[in-house]
Amino acid sequence: MRNSKLTSLEEAIRRSGLQDGMTISFHHHFRGGDKVVNLVVDKLAEMGFKNLHLAASSLSDVHAPLIEHIRNGVITRISTSGLRGELANAISHGLMKEPVVFRSHGGRGSAIASGELAIDVAFLGASACDELGNACGVPRSENAKSICGSLGYALPDARYARHVVVLTDDLVPYPNLPAGIRGADVESVVVVDSVGDSSKISAGAIRDSKNPRDILLAKQAANVVIHSGYFQDGFSIQTGTGGASLAVVKYIREQMIKDGIKASFALGGITAHMVKLHEEGLIGRLIDVQSFDKVAAQSIAEDPSHVEVSSVEYASGQHLGSATHALDIVILSALEVDTDFNVNVLVGSDGIIRGAIGGHQDTAADSALSIIVCPLLRGRIPCVVPKVTTLITPGKSVDVVVTEYGIAVNPARPEIAERLREAGLKIVDIKDLAAKATSIIGTPDPLPFGERVVGVVMNRDGQKLDEIHIIQ
Amino acid sequence: MRNSKLTSLEEAIRRSGLQDGMTISFHHHFRGGDKVVNLVVDKLAEMGFKNLHLAASSLSDVHAPLIEHIRNGVITRISTSGLRGELANAISHGLMKEPVVFRSHGGRGSAIASGELAIDVAFLGASACDELGNACGVPRSENAKSICGSLGYALPDARYARHVVVLTDDLVPYPNLPAGIRGADVESVVVVDSVGDSSKISAGAIRDSKNPRDILLAKQAANVVIHSGYFQDGFSIQTGTGGASLAVVKYIREQMIKDGIKASFALGGITAHMVKLHEEGLIGRLIDVQSFDKVAAQSIAEDPSHVEVSSVEYASGQHLGSATHALDIVILSALEVDTDFNVNVLVGSDGIIRGAIGGHQDTAADSALSIIVCPLLRGRIPCVVPKVTTLITPGKSVDVVVTEYGIAVNPARPEIAERLREAGLKIVDIKDLAAKATSIIGTPDPLPFGERVVGVVMNRDGQKLDEIHIIQ
Repeated sequence: MRNSKLTSLEEAIRRSGLQDGMTISFHHHFRGGDKVVNLVVDKLAEMGFKNLHLAASSLSDVHAPLIEHIRNGVITRISTSGLRGELANAISHGLMKEPVVFRSHGGRGSAIASGELAIDVAFLGASACDELGNACGVPRSENAKSICGSLGYALPDARYARHVVVLTDDLVPYPNLPAGIRGADVESVVVVDSVGDSSKISAGAIRDSKNPRDILLAKQAANVVIHSGYFQDGFSIQTGTGGASLAVVKYIREQMIKDGIKASFALGGITAHMVKLHEEGLIGRLIDVQSFDKVAAQSIAEDPSHVEVSSVEYASGQHLGSATHALDIVILSALEVDTDFNVNVLVGSDGIIRGAIGGHQDTAADSALSIIVCPLLRGRIPCVVPKVTTLITPGKSVDVVVTEYGIAVNPARPEIAERLREAGLKIVDIKDLAAKATSIIGTPDPLPFGERVVGVVMNRDGQKLDEIHIIQ
Repeated sequence: MRNSKLTSLEEAIRRSGLQDGMTISFHHHFRGGDKVVNLVVDKLAEMGFKNLHLAASSLSDVHAPLIEHIRNGVITRISTSGLRGELANAISHGLMKEPVVFRSHGGRGSAIASGELAIDVAFLGASACDELGNACGVPRSENAKSICGSLGYALPDARYARHVVVLTDDLVPYPNLPAGIRGADVESVVVVDSVGDSSKISAGAIRDSKNPRDILLAKQAANVVIHSGYFQDGFSIQTGTGGASLAVVKYIREQMIKDGIKASFALGGITAHMVKLHEEGLIGRLIDVQSFDKVAAQSIAEDPSHVEVSSVEYASGQHLGSATHALDIVILSALEVDTDFNVNVLVGSDGIIRGAIGGHQDTAADSALSIIVCPLLRGRIPCVVPKVTTLITPGKSVDVVVTEYGIAVNPARPEIAERLREAGLKIVDIKDLAAKATSIIGTPDPLPFGERVVGVVMNRDGQKLDEIHIIQ
């Protein structure tokens, strides 16, 4: 093809004008199956780059090889929504001199749009791409090797990065349209063996739970939804990661059918459950920044009312058109909730980073009703605590906390407490929940944090919210 | 709805921070049926604004009321692709002090993207919009009053303007997705009685011709396509405005079926003819920057393989992902072609502005084969001339000129002349065509142009290509 942008990874990097000290970016739509970050950073290391800032939409277990690149000075700064596995462990123990900057998905979108997070070169994996750079996360030929569905977290990078390289494992004939990443925004196209293992997109945080306690929690959360006052025809809903919060949809479905109530849209990470309700006519539109499983990814390929949106459109606090501003109900998980309703989803009770902010801050802040579903205890670890280890979502954004020992409602929302009480649900004081946890397992020893700051948590508007200290 | 952007036009203007001297923008997807430009400029006049720069994607007969606003100093600068009717006549005769700046559609997109054409406030008409600003050109409710199809010319404005106001005649429930204009880019939403009369979107330059000479020309152009060497499985095609160029598709259809040839995509202004071939499986994708009739507009509403693209994605010379870079064949019309193959589509042989650059420059430059279809004479007006009145598309971009007196091929493309000759088509020297025209109607008197410059023609890369002088 005339004007083909097809080239090798090495040549694409050369053409990009990347230099030591610059910012590179990646998306995490393949989650634990991602192959792009390691491939590209290996190549950058081989080419001798140093002191790069890696700005990913998120990072996970699969990115452990970055540890070596950090040790060798190839990567010296990281911005991400989350960290898991060996990399998170090493960073928690002081691997990096510069603190990792953690942003919510909406916060990252805003920061990219405003130029606060200026990306020099974006490396974006796609399941199909043509030679002019039109790229998507769904299969477009018989040779397709991967599928990840929405490319929502990659879209701000494509729009705002100085230089965009698409990596694909299926080069298809022009025009690969419709496509979320448009050729006009793309400088180079690189064909690689694999951009990701699609079997892993629903791994980890978004597996469907069979845990009886999760099922109990999900049913209780469904009761909260149903009796909250927001369960009305035309309502909208999002469920975050975590088995219990994902499962809620299953349990409100029955009530929707019984009451003749339909949702106008479901938002966020879209799951097979959401797709099922949508296909049954119970949910009007699916607004998808990230497809949480293969069923969702396949649906976005085929159904025009299942719409890919960027993280800016999804959850930016600085763009009033973003979907969270129209969201009624969000159901979220937590590692810890404290007695001021503050939530931690990032740092474990052992002080080690093991999660992601995701859309937690964004949806809790903008939704009309935010529900946190979390057990009182996970093994010997209390989840309702006097004070969260790390502040991720401020308590003023959190309305209801559902545990197996009862439901706590933020005192700022007495009308919701009243409605739930009237429906016969067990409303408890959050301080009593924390006390209950303490009574069962005692007060844990303080964590052995050191002085050094290894992570900075931003709020969605770009202000520093908390610091994560080195764990010793 | 929480965070609704719904407001009055006056309040939207106030919120926009618009000040005297700033740049406002509009799209022309309703063509002769547009109601937004006049409505908004009337309101701006009423509010006392002066000295505004009106940057429309194009202007037509319906915008004659602007004459009064220009006289009163409300509008003092205009940028557009074209001008027609009374407004064009008045400007040709010196209505404005500042020359009108004419850009191609791709050139306008590039200029907006680069910041050369910086838009302060965009006023964008939409056939459906929700309260957060998600807007499209297709109906989304039973109350829909209008349809224009693709909003391609409005998309750069939505993306790059400092402030975006959507006007709609059908406010629909959130989420109005999919939508080309996304709420994250929109500041205000204004409901009006009508954004446009959809019955007029196929008026004027894009009516289907029943003129026997046009039909002859279309058939000859189809022969050129078929024997050009580019008529191969997977080819791509665009037809510009003008009865003959639009009709070509009808005549190549038969040959496509006979030879088992399918097109990969059709580009540009999409017509009912294109939709028909697409639905028959003869054209893979429709890439639509502008829907030329209601059939096309309806198709883009329903068919995911009929894709809306922005003018940047369509035809920017500075974005190599733009679709023109993948275009094989374009068939265009002309007011005049000269013996250097230069084309004029903007200024009549009477010196009065009566056309639009459109995508002419863009597609001629980027396509593998550009074919101009024009009669030798229109009444007593010669169309093949020694020198065009105004230079719009440089001859180096033009490969073939089809007239009823024979086909001229640019000497720079001898291989094409050879192929057409072998196919038995009548190849003539373009100088002989010009001489023939002169022999029939004589040499016209020179036009009574004055010194003053009333228009500046830009090439697609932002350089000045020609000037249009006042006609006396």
